Amino acid sequence: MNKLVAGIDIGGTNSVLGLVDDKGKIYAEGTIATRKYPDFDLYLQALHDTIQNFSETVDEPFELAGIGIGAPNGNYYTGCVEFAANLLWKGVLPFAGKLSALFPNIPIKLTNDANAAAIGEMIYGGAKGMKNFSVITLGTGLGSGIVVDGELLYGHDGFAGELGHIIVTTNGRECGCGRCGCLETYASATGIKRTVYKLLADQVADSELKNISFNELSAEMICTAAINGDPVAIEAFAHTGEHLGRALANLVAITAPEAIFLFGGLAKAGKYIFEPTIKSMEENILKFWRGKVALLPSGINDKNAAVLGAAALVWKIINEK
Amino acid sequence: MNKLVAGIDIGGTNSVLGLVDDKGKIYAEGTIATRKYPDFDLYLQALHDTIQNFSETVDEPFELAGIGIGAPNGNYYTGCVEFAANLLWKGVLPFAGKLSALFPNIPIKLTNDANAAAIGEMIYGGAKGMKNFSVITLGTGLGSGIVVDGELLYGHDGFAGELGHIIVTTNGRECGCGRCGCLETYASATGIKRTVYKLLADQVADSELKNISFNELSAEMICTAAINGDPVAIEAFAHTGEHLGRALANLVAITAPEAIFLFGGLAKAGKYIFEPTIKSMEENILKFWRGKVALLPSGINDKNAAVLGAAALVWKIINEK
Repeated sequence: MNKLVAGIDIGGTNSVLGLVDDKGKIYAEGTIATRKYPDFDLYLQALHDTIQNFSETVDEPFELAGIGIGAPNGNYYTGCVEFAANLLWKGVLPFAGKLSALFPNIPIKLTNDANAAAIGEMIYGGAKGMKNFSVITLGTGLGSGIVVDGELLYGHDGFAGELGHIIVTTNGRECGCGRCGCLETYASATGIKRTVYKLLADQVADSELKNISFNELSAEMICTAAINGDPVAIEAFAHTGEHLGRALANLVAITAPEAIFLFGGLAKAGKYIFEPTIKSMEENILKFWRGKVALLPSGINDKNAAVLGAAALVWKIINEK
Repeated sequence: MNKLVAGIDIGGTNSVLGLVDDKGKIYAEGTIATRKYPDFDLYLQALHDTIQNFSETVDEPFELAGIGIGAPNGNYYTGCVEFAANLLWKGVLPFAGKLSALFPNIPIKLTNDANAAAIGEMIYGGAKGMKNFSVITLGTGLGSGIVVDGELLYGHDGFAGELGHIIVTTNGRECGCGRCGCLETYASATGIKRTVYKLLADQVADSELKNISFNELSAEMICTAAINGDPVAIEAFAHTGEHLGRALANLVAITAPEAIFLFGGLAKAGKYIFEPTIKSMEENILKFWRGKVALLPSGINDKNAAVLGAAALVWKIINEK
């Protein structure tokens, strides 16, 4: 019987589910509006029902071989989501533990979104066969999944890989974490918006971005403007890449990866983000690593990346048995 | 029969050898003047002879169970020392391979000094039982050995853990590596000397350090001056700790260790280095790690630390069998 793993990507607005085989083929998909369930147990029941209903939409019979979950502030060691700012339920949520009661006798694994993306990259994407690499997720914030000798770097408490919160500028931009100068205040979809506004404040150059409010502005709009030759948009990408490249050079000094993958919205800007990032990384890297660490776009189909990453968490364990 | 491992610490001036048991007891010691051997093969022969002669100085019969080597630019994966600036022999030196010909059938392992210190800390020192920790060596430069899930972080090429060469200040101090602003230009024995000279240049405060030339000045002298209440020395330690603490806060964000150990000359300054470093680390660390990551002095007897660390590299492997 075909073995399939349920991958769940838990977001503040929606939770996306999929049934995935070991090649990354998706057999069924579903979405739950996370905010519709202020009661955590009812939410888990809805996840359960969605997965159970998959058996009706998949033509051939299959065995549910496990459940992988990517969640904000997910702790792999405990299976809990701990104090996630964007979820309705507060405190420490025993996700894996409670789901195990609904799905006994199958592996249920949970980690944060960026770690799931890294495992997805290793199982289905561009990091196949690699033992030491990092995935940087450039979304609203900046996340990182660091793989060392074939395993995710979780650290003592399960929360390693907070590259978005290394401080890159003393007395720099205010960060949502309560400190100042964190990398993600510069290198993320939000970071590049802030950089655009800084440039509009400092310079007189004309820009199509002058017509867009901060809240309306998206990384995609900045990318479109860059493609149109807008000087402010192009310079904003250059500044973003400069910060990101410097941080990646430091990440290389610490973890010596074979490659670094950029994933998420901002990474889709292609050369506008890759060229300045590579330039800055190479300028700031220790000489003997120059030209040796590849900076690559994620090899995972973006649409289903989060679900694939979550499923990969369990496929990695099954494959190693 | 008692099993003993030979630990070798290779330095540019001297190479120190010791015979060590699994508890860290040293049964014999020897020193070779590294610079007296411009011929690499004759140097290896001298190492061989010194180890062979140990059997005459040790009372009870023993079995040589392996050889562990700590060396500048040592690569654990290849057993080679690669392009070490302070050694007479240039290029890639196949240390472990050539020693294996002289000592067949025993494990011979090599890594860099900071990694050896980290393994020493785990086997003999304060990191016993820890799975995720780092050792920072504060000598002429700054080295780091990062342990993740019980294993040293070597990375793709064996050279991970170059914390001394993360860039902490854009357009900062010139570093021996050819770049500017590396952590070790601020936080190391050399770094604090440079900071003393910067303070003497910037300020008018009286200081006993005004009588000492740059080449004469040592971290020990700066420590003595601080104990004597010298304001420049005290401020130099404060600046050093501020830089180091910021870098350690970033290291925590990436690797989430249980503890960080300070090792080497500068670490012996006690509260003068620990207090400002802890203060800065706590100020700059992500909130949920505040107060959770211990900053500790190395638990290894300093005199024999390098030899113990080198021997521990092999004891770790023997113990795991």
